[in-house]
Amino acid sequence: MRVYHLYSGGKDSSLAAWILTRMGYEVKLVTATFGTFDNWKYARETARKLGFEHEVMKLPREILERATEMAVEDGRPGRAIQFIHEKALEALASRPEVERVSDGTRRDDRVPYLDLPKARSLEDRFNVAYIRPLLGLGYRTINELVESLFEVEIRESEELEKSDYEVELRQLLRERGIDPLSIFPKRHYQSRVMGWRERAR
Amino acid sequence: MRVYHLYSGGKDSSLAAWILTRMGYEVKLVTATFGTFDNWKYARETARKLGFEHEVMKLPREILERATEMAVEDGRPGRAIQFIHEKALEALASRPEVERVSDGTRRDDRVPYLDLPKARSLEDRFNVAYIRPLLGLGYRTINELVESLFEVEIRESEELEKSDYEVELRQLLRERGIDPLSIFPKRHYQSRVMGWRERAR
Repeated sequence: MRVYHLYSGGKDSSLAAWILTRMGYEVKLVTATFGTFDNWKYARETARKLGFEHEVMKLPREILERATEMAVEDGRPGRAIQFIHEKALEALASRPEVERVSDGTRRDDRVPYLDLPKARSLEDRFNVAYIRPLLGLGYRTINELVESLFEVEIRESEELEKSDYEVELRQLLRERGIDPLSIFPKRHYQSRVMGWRERAR
Repeated sequence: MRVYHLYSGGKDSSLAAWILTRMGYEVKLVTATFGTFDNWKYARETARKLGFEHEVMKLPREILERATEMAVEDGRPGRAIQFIHEKALEALASRPEVERVSDGTRRDDRVPYLDLPKARSLEDRFNVAYIRPLLGLGYRTINELVESLFEVEIRESEELEKSDYEVELRQLLRERGIDPLSIFPKRHYQSRVMGWRERAR
């Protein structure tokens, strides 16, 4: 039972990957990129440290351009992030070998999030199962599991050594002469999963 | 990390209990009853076969009476089942030793289901974490996991050898001279978890 799991290298998608493994799935991690920046390498590094198979999936640059326009129009990133995530799920689900797709989206996040009709539509259009191991978990449960499982490094930083969609969106905004801070909230801290805490788990 | 898991003995709550165990939780199964019927014994039997600790939690009969009124008023059982489930979660969460509660509610069910404000309210009012391992899983994923894990017996039957809220609701309706079939859809098949399929898992 192989599942293709959208992976940023962050705490949520790492925790979701672990739960899938514990449920008996053979987990293949997939990081989406538009090829404008090599920040996918952080996800690869974490994936290797955790011992997962990892793959980089290149998405058409038009998706990033469309998302950038949405972010500029809205003055905030929510719709753009949602758009990219849906396109990444669709790209993964449309591959003929893929029967199951998953991600680390959680109960308390507003974006990215597929509501019930969207989740079912993804499953029906591409004949896949869509699995979200964190959807029924609150922040308290996620925190206690992350703390028990992973070595996490928290740093004060503006530059994000992360493989999430935000990094390439910020890049393209800069290229177009738009300050990303006018759209994204300023972040003082970032966290990175550095490896397992207990080898035993 | 002990979690108190509302348990009917059915496929969903059994699968959720298994996932919780795989996530590292010490799982205690709890079956709610109003004391009007001993159908909790089916959940106990399945719990024992699966090797879980099991407890029967008695709820005040007024809750069942109130739920029965709702079912009669509505001519369908949805609001009554939802009401009982919320009261069962609250009764469990209010116990001083309980830090985590869980259940087998799933993505594709309309009831019982706590939306985000209700889930957060349960957590905040009782200072617990509320964990729903099946919330991010569709029917296809649930079916493939149940099939790989459990021996399930499917029988043609009207009398439900189950420990869910429906059985006691039906009983009280009959006592009040109301035909349960005027409120509950007629069921031709019922399934019961009889034990593990593979001892190894």
